[in-house]
Amino acid sequence: MQTPLKIAVVGSGLVGSLLAIYLKRAGHTVHVYDRSPDIRTVEFSGRSINLAMSHRGWRALDDVGLGEEIRKIAIPMEKRAIHAIGEPLNFQYYGKDGESIYSISRGLLNRKMVTLAEEEGVKFFFETKIWDVTLADATLHAGETERGEWKELQYDKVFGADGAFSRIRHRMQRQSMFNYSQQFLNTGYKELNIPANADGTHKLDKNSLHIWPRNDFMLIALPNLDGSFTCTLFMPFEGENSFEALKDRETLEKFFADYFPSTIDVIPELVEDFFKNPTSTLVTMKCYPWTYSDKVALIGDACHAIVPFYGHGMNAGFEDITILSQLIEQYGDDWDTIFKEYQESRKPNADAIAELSYRNFMEMSSKTIDDKFLLQKKIEKWFSDRYPDKWLPLYSRVTFSYRPYSEALEIGDRQKAIMDEVMQIDGIENKWNTPEVEQKIIELLK
Amino acid sequence: MQTPLKIAVVGSGLVGSLLAIYLKRAGHTVHVYDRSPDIRTVEFSGRSINLAMSHRGWRALDDVGLGEEIRKIAIPMEKRAIHAIGEPLNFQYYGKDGESIYSISRGLLNRKMVTLAEEEGVKFFFETKIWDVTLADATLHAGETERGEWKELQYDKVFGADGAFSRIRHRMQRQSMFNYSQQFLNTGYKELNIPANADGTHKLDKNSLHIWPRNDFMLIALPNLDGSFTCTLFMPFEGENSFEALKDRETLEKFFADYFPSTIDVIPELVEDFFKNPTSTLVTMKCYPWTYSDKVALIGDACHAIVPFYGHGMNAGFEDITILSQLIEQYGDDWDTIFKEYQESRKPNADAIAELSYRNFMEMSSKTIDDKFLLQKKIEKWFSDRYPDKWLPLYSRVTFSYRPYSEALEIGDRQKAIMDEVMQIDGIENKWNTPEVEQKIIELLK
Repeated sequence: MQTPLKIAVVGSGLVGSLLAIYLKRAGHTVHVYDRSPDIRTVEFSGRSINLAMSHRGWRALDDVGLGEEIRKIAIPMEKRAIHAIGEPLNFQYYGKDGESIYSISRGLLNRKMVTLAEEEGVKFFFETKIWDVTLADATLHAGETERGEWKELQYDKVFGADGAFSRIRHRMQRQSMFNYSQQFLNTGYKELNIPANADGTHKLDKNSLHIWPRNDFMLIALPNLDGSFTCTLFMPFEGENSFEALKDRETLEKFFADYFPSTIDVIPELVEDFFKNPTSTLVTMKCYPWTYSDKVALIGDACHAIVPFYGHGMNAGFEDITILSQLIEQYGDDWDTIFKEYQESRKPNADAIAELSYRNFMEMSSKTIDDKFLLQKKIEKWFSDRYPDKWLPLYSRVTFSYRPYSEALEIGDRQKAIMDEVMQIDGIENKWNTPEVEQKIIELLK
Repeated sequence: MQTPLKIAVVGSGLVGSLLAIYLKRAGHTVHVYDRSPDIRTVEFSGRSINLAMSHRGWRALDDVGLGEEIRKIAIPMEKRAIHAIGEPLNFQYYGKDGESIYSISRGLLNRKMVTLAEEEGVKFFFETKIWDVTLADATLHAGETERGEWKELQYDKVFGADGAFSRIRHRMQRQSMFNYSQQFLNTGYKELNIPANADGTHKLDKNSLHIWPRNDFMLIALPNLDGSFTCTLFMPFEGENSFEALKDRETLEKFFADYFPSTIDVIPELVEDFFKNPTSTLVTMKCYPWTYSDKVALIGDACHAIVPFYGHGMNAGFEDITILSQLIEQYGDDWDTIFKEYQESRKPNADAIAELSYRNFMEMSSKTIDDKFLLQKKIEKWFSDRYPDKWLPLYSRVTFSYRPYSEALEIGDRQKAIMDEVMQIDGIENKWNTPEVEQKIIELLK
């Protein structure tokens, strides 16, 4: 137990509310501020990619006994279901022995997390806009408008869990020696919907993450509890096949008929949803440092916003909390050391998952229908089954392990170099599971 | 001539005041705002690296007939003077036939530019703090403090020439799809001074840029008109030899005695200046886009701040003005096209000079005392003298030509690959100027 402090968490999203629970359990008074209304009182916005919770996320929940409650609203997805045009559905398993990622509605999860935090004694202040922070003494500045009257809210510590466009980071950015970058993709996204059957069952296989890979663009669908799927169309903003090009009903319908014929029957509200829902942007944001003295720390998207193609934004944010909590246990009241080790240990991992996420768009949108890539995956799986100690596939290391992301990136690059050589073997497609190939990989691993 | 508009330039630095002159000549009403007092009324701050004006800078001045006036306060530097410990002074010429870069005091030049702009009819508003801009209608918001009363200043267009920490860009940063990065070096700098001799002459060779290269750190000196030199010590903030380590008089004097023995006699105020002058940071800042509709544009450091090791910060900013002016001539009142082509043509060049500048720290601080590097330079010069059409050295293409920076970077990388091969030739040091080497380079150039 630490000496009890008065701590403010800015942002009541998933990371903010889970962090609040951890800090409350550590003995502190915890106030959470959010500029938005209580998420339990609002309709969802139609711009939320469903979450894919995996090992790292579950660990952070299980460590404070919340996993069981959350598993009730999670649907396991053990495989990708690949919808190529004019071909039968192809299933690609993520791991082995039923290892799955879990589809959860961001909104549902967030509502539940806020309620759980309240039950712990965390106090929430919704519709309270934090515009600025005085870093040196952890004072928040709140007010109706950016240029209007503000009042001061004093704390012992402030955590900025206020997302990719964090106001807390905004103040830190104006410090000297603060490194910062934000890079937007030329690809945006839009939410669509596959409703449930009349009897409440799912129209597509429920335990899959569905992908319609079309190289420069793709459609994905994740299952919801009510039998529906939340779909996300990822596509360039401009160019031949782009959001800009899909200007009217006719063009849109022709585009879907050409590229996603199998969805015509299952997305009845295509036109309405497409023109009603916003087209959202995708940004990678990096910064450093993440802390200011022992007073202020950033966490989650506020210090490492990533693109969603590995499904690890929330998992990485939750892992921040796990690491912070371990450091709190280790160092007690020595917050200087806690903050220092927190940022130093998390930064390389945040950079690594950012890179992996960026690369994974290509894997999802193109490689999942590339025969050579599929053969390579098959060889990796075959070898990994025989030598589990020698080869853990990249996806599994990222998703079904707690090994650092930076290690996954590094080993993944080494594995890729080895597989590039293996794929050069003459006639590999006919002898991929032979002792020759096995020996070659063992040789290259040395 | 364009249709006369009311244009605001934010920032009265070198780029802001020269841009104002260009815009005035193009027929516009031009107001320049600066948060600082009139530079003609203040003492200089002791944190300004002297400028090295080269071809691109001179062109921007000459095109509006200001070159002659500015040449009066410029000192040509035709060579580097390398001060290695325990070795005689070594001169390395920058170009050929007396090609020189020109040492100019930033402060003196800025004073002159403001006066020249005023004489053209540009109106300056000093000590007027611009806190924000409404991008859609080019309205500036000025006031005493960030949180106090502001008044609105309406213009037809706004140019943000307000430097690396630009407020105009700050507003653009909050737009979606605005890419941005700021990266600080772990190396900082501090200004020192070599005074003139009693008779007003220079204590060191006047027509050289002096360098004391010490690998991780270096000292440089640029001549001033009054016989003094402005020195800059570049050194890591932390570590063995660092600003942090030089905590007291004794340590500082020992450090200079060990590493810069030849400066002891010529820097009499070392201790006073070292502890009085600030230690400044070095940042590379990149962003995109540089314009907002046809209303607002960034220019100079406000959109591409670079580290000073190629001496091209101002030269690149002045070249922005040259290009903008050419586009104004070409497209008249079509500001949409002017802004679009301006940012599209300048962005790759800004990125290239940022990269070249970053790399040049290594060249200045280490390679200038590396025998292999010096031999390579000698071979390049020898070959270039024989085949000026086939080989223009990188430094000359950047500094003594108007070819795009991006081309310089690209060709420079190709030249480096060729020279890496040439340096592999057995016994190259003894046959560097033979037909064999000549043929090898010609072969590799194909």
